[in-house]
Amino acid sequence: MSQQHILKKFDTDLEDLRSRVLAMGGLVEQQFLRAMGGLESGDLSAIEQIIANDHLVNRHEVELDEACTHIIARLQPTAVDLRMVMTVVKIITDLERIGDEAKKIAKMARALHSDNLRSVPHIELRSTANIAVTMLRKSLDAFARVDETVSYEVARQDREVDASFKATMRQLITFMMEDPRTISSSLDLLFVARAIERIGDHAKNIAEYVVYMVKGRDVRHIGLEALEKELSQ
Amino acid sequence: MSQQHILKKFDTDLEDLRSRVLAMGGLVEQQFLRAMGGLESGDLSAIEQIIANDHLVNRHEVELDEACTHIIARLQPTAVDLRMVMTVVKIITDLERIGDEAKKIAKMARALHSDNLRSVPHIELRSTANIAVTMLRKSLDAFARVDETVSYEVARQDREVDASFKATMRQLITFMMEDPRTISSSLDLLFVARAIERIGDHAKNIAEYVVYMVKGRDVRHIGLEALEKELSQ
Repeated sequence: MSQQHILKKFDTDLEDLRSRVLAMGGLVEQQFLRAMGGLESGDLSAIEQIIANDHLVNRHEVELDEACTHIIARLQPTAVDLRMVMTVVKIITDLERIGDEAKKIAKMARALHSDNLRSVPHIELRSTANIAVTMLRKSLDAFARVDETVSYEVARQDREVDASFKATMRQLITFMMEDPRTISSSLDLLFVARAIERIGDHAKNIAEYVVYMVKGRDVRHIGLEALEKELSQ
Repeated sequence: MSQQHILKKFDTDLEDLRSRVLAMGGLVEQQFLRAMGGLESGDLSAIEQIIANDHLVNRHEVELDEACTHIIARLQPTAVDLRMVMTVVKIITDLERIGDEAKKIAKMARALHSDNLRSVPHIELRSTANIAVTMLRKSLDAFARVDETVSYEVARQDREVDASFKATMRQLITFMMEDPRTISSSLDLLFVARAIERIGDHAKNIAEYVVYMVKGRDVRHIGLEALEKELSQ
């Protein structure tokens, strides 16, 4: 291949990689939203479908990992291009785990709706789930547009999601204390709340990888204040 | 640099990378075991130390990620060497998350021991934690010795850990039903049990990456039976 040819192939491969990451992101977002829908509706066949579809998420991960290794081996990217490929390797791990959490929510939804005899506490989880979805969308959008500025916002929203998880836990403890018959279903709901909180964490991880991709600075584990400072530079 | 020189540097860098991964693995194992110790002893200053030390685990991860990117950019490894570096990128993500789970256990230990007035159920978690530690050791040993055969054993032990988590959950539900005053501390213990189960999952991930490193075949998500078949080939 001529130098020109290699460069062109290179751009096409990176572009292809980027759009496949976004497709995977779209799929896990759909899995998550459908799992929340199943939790609310109790539509068991829809819930089974979510559980069955998890292998599609896994396949995306395996294929994208392979694509990254191929690109590195054959095209030997450097600097920002290499950082982009390494970022993809990290992002897809978090996306796959968001898929796992969606599957867990679907399994809890199945448990909660399969047994009509159980007392299920009325508890609102949708608004926190919506924040987590927004975080995921923002992170992937930041990746697509190679724009790291959104990262601070995602980190701030992650705090909201964490606080909301703690509030939900306190609420569920009250339910369980007042009526021990709700203990088993309260635990199912607690695991749903925990899964939402974990999805927020994964979205935050993705946002942090994007900062690394753009600025070449690793901002994981540095805290919200230091992150704000980093982004203002 | 001469070709000879590059090759030598290459081996040294990969060897260095390997030993740093093992050092990080040793650290997270220690964090996990100390957290279990803190849970049993209630030694609050030891518990605070575990929580404070989590940043050391994070630092390992950030530095190792950087080392991997450098090696790829400067030495352009291919085939099994490239797979080894990509495996390290994946392994350290799981090690960092084991560190997070150890920190969570330490926080639950602090909550359980800070408040003497709470009724805490007597429940045995150490034997499952020991299985998870064994899984982690085996996985890292497999990585160090470039030997994938142990992977099946780790996957089988992961099933044990999962089953043990479910049994613990049933036990805790019984405690909570019989005595609602134990609800709050039962939930803390449930989160400890969940953290142990997650550590098992991460150890299993590491074992699967090692199969990929050695055989170039991605065995994630294929199930225990298919894995056994793969390893026998």
